[in-house]
Amino acid sequence: MTRLNLKDIRAAHQRIGPYINTTPVLICTSLNHMAGAPLFFKCENFQKTGAFKFRGACNAVFLLSDEEASRGVVTHSSGNFAAALALAASKRGTSARIVMPSNAPEVKVAAVKGYGGIITFCEPTLKSRETTAQKVIEETGATFIHPYNDFRIIAGQGTAALELMEEIPDLDFIVAPVGGGGLLSGTAIAAKGLNPKIKVIGCEPKNADDAYRSMKAGRIIPSENPNTIADGLKTSLGDKTFPIIRGLVDEILLATEEEIISAMRHTFERMKIVAEPSAAVPLAVLLSGQLNVADRNVGVVISGGNVDLGTLFEYTPPTP
Amino acid sequence: MTRLNLKDIRAAHQRIGPYINTTPVLICTSLNHMAGAPLFFKCENFQKTGAFKFRGACNAVFLLSDEEASRGVVTHSSGNFAAALALAASKRGTSARIVMPSNAPEVKVAAVKGYGGIITFCEPTLKSRETTAQKVIEETGATFIHPYNDFRIIAGQGTAALELMEEIPDLDFIVAPVGGGGLLSGTAIAAKGLNPKIKVIGCEPKNADDAYRSMKAGRIIPSENPNTIADGLKTSLGDKTFPIIRGLVDEILLATEEEIISAMRHTFERMKIVAEPSAAVPLAVLLSGQLNVADRNVGVVISGGNVDLGTLFEYTPPTP
Repeated sequence: MTRLNLKDIRAAHQRIGPYINTTPVLICTSLNHMAGAPLFFKCENFQKTGAFKFRGACNAVFLLSDEEASRGVVTHSSGNFAAALALAASKRGTSARIVMPSNAPEVKVAAVKGYGGIITFCEPTLKSRETTAQKVIEETGATFIHPYNDFRIIAGQGTAALELMEEIPDLDFIVAPVGGGGLLSGTAIAAKGLNPKIKVIGCEPKNADDAYRSMKAGRIIPSENPNTIADGLKTSLGDKTFPIIRGLVDEILLATEEEIISAMRHTFERMKIVAEPSAAVPLAVLLSGQLNVADRNVGVVISGGNVDLGTLFEYTPPTP
Repeated sequence: MTRLNLKDIRAAHQRIGPYINTTPVLICTSLNHMAGAPLFFKCENFQKTGAFKFRGACNAVFLLSDEEASRGVVTHSSGNFAAALALAASKRGTSARIVMPSNAPEVKVAAVKGYGGIITFCEPTLKSRETTAQKVIEETGATFIHPYNDFRIIAGQGTAALELMEEIPDLDFIVAPVGGGGLLSGTAIAAKGLNPKIKVIGCEPKNADDAYRSMKAGRIIPSENPNTIADGLKTSLGDKTFPIIRGLVDEILLATEEEIISAMRHTFERMKIVAEPSAAVPLAVLLSGQLNVADRNVGVVISGGNVDLGTLFEYTPPTP
């Protein structure tokens, strides 16, 4: 694959169509008032495995030859991509080996196991993660699939924006979160391919602003140990996602931790949907007022809904 | 109005169409597996004011003559109907006076005020509520609208089931919560009107089982000070809702507090939607296994999403 374009996104959509949820586009009057513009939320929190990641994982897995598929796939991830690849592999009738750090939250481990993923634990370091993955590849012949820095993944992630713009064709803006850049680059390819005039805005936590700084500098500047509640956006751009984003994305804007939490609260209280912190970053940017969207149609990608709800459901018997 | 039928529900739908949200029907693969049947969730938590109550309130308010409307409406409610009537009145360009107990939660008071409702506080007793409402009626000439024991309200509430069955025509069951019975009686009229073979099941907290007991006894037996987390279902059937439910509803089934909380947790964690405890009661019944729905199509009314999320969004700055 040389240079991804709208055709690739359409082909990916055709390929993964039988497996994914066509997620709804929701609107919320009170958030429209707060943002001063009509917002159209593409709810990928309702996607299978609770996040858009399943789109890319499906596309990559169904692009394998039968021979490749017979040897399985492998990735390293402790987040949404791990569960997504496990389910995608099971849909293809093959196995997914997931390299996870030994300190991964129990709930994430359970999710991967629940979708049939085979977990190999490693030390929680980049080096251990990579050598462990390499070892699994050597032992099994499995195909490595990177969570975002992979054209198959990028094409799959772009299908969410494709669906959104086919349902709401007259968007003036589309805003999406950016971590490693798989979703944002796929979104930009789909959106600009369908409407070259649309403005594509990447939204990033201020505490993990590598995309913002990389765009300014014109080269990849990774985040170093970023600390943000938006745990899905701690990763830094890769050499495949950065050039696409640099070429097609109009702007990267930042949200503070307080703005992210407030936006997440609005998704629960106003929209009545469960959005994870990373998914609330675009709304946080919109409500911060730093982007002038007055009365323009704005598409917003809600990227996922996998959030630890803590003690919310602890049972206290009613007092008689 | 003598006897409500499907025509009345259709007329109500026509009347309120410009004001309500046509809420989406969501499906959730993992809940289908758990229930052993395809479930179709009609998401009234996405309705304006966060609950189905807005449908009935709108229908009642838009049925008023201009002369009646000029004098406003009044109700007593500390829950979802208060906010619904306030917004419906503002859509009609009139005023809503809401009699609320002095100990109503601040968040409910704020919601009513936010929709432009005029609050009159009363003592938290049935007697004070009724005499205060009577006083407001005498002073203003406002029309009293009961939260559920009113044919205009019942017809409006039935429009949710109408939309659900027009979208998913081949339902074998429809399950809805029952408190005062406005939603359940409207649901039964719409559902049996469209398909006389459909089974209509009312779902009630075991701790507030007046509908269950009333159906067995053949007469209204009110709950006395029921104590359940499903606060929207503490009310008892009225003389207008009971005969409809007795005539059309196939069965009332009960859920324990633990089952309700567990079902609510599933709506958050699996469906990624915010459902209030009352809205989770039908799912609680389905997952309890007491109803044989194996492989049958089941419509489920998610009645609302107004829930106090407690300390979930308290901000703790990340440790550096």
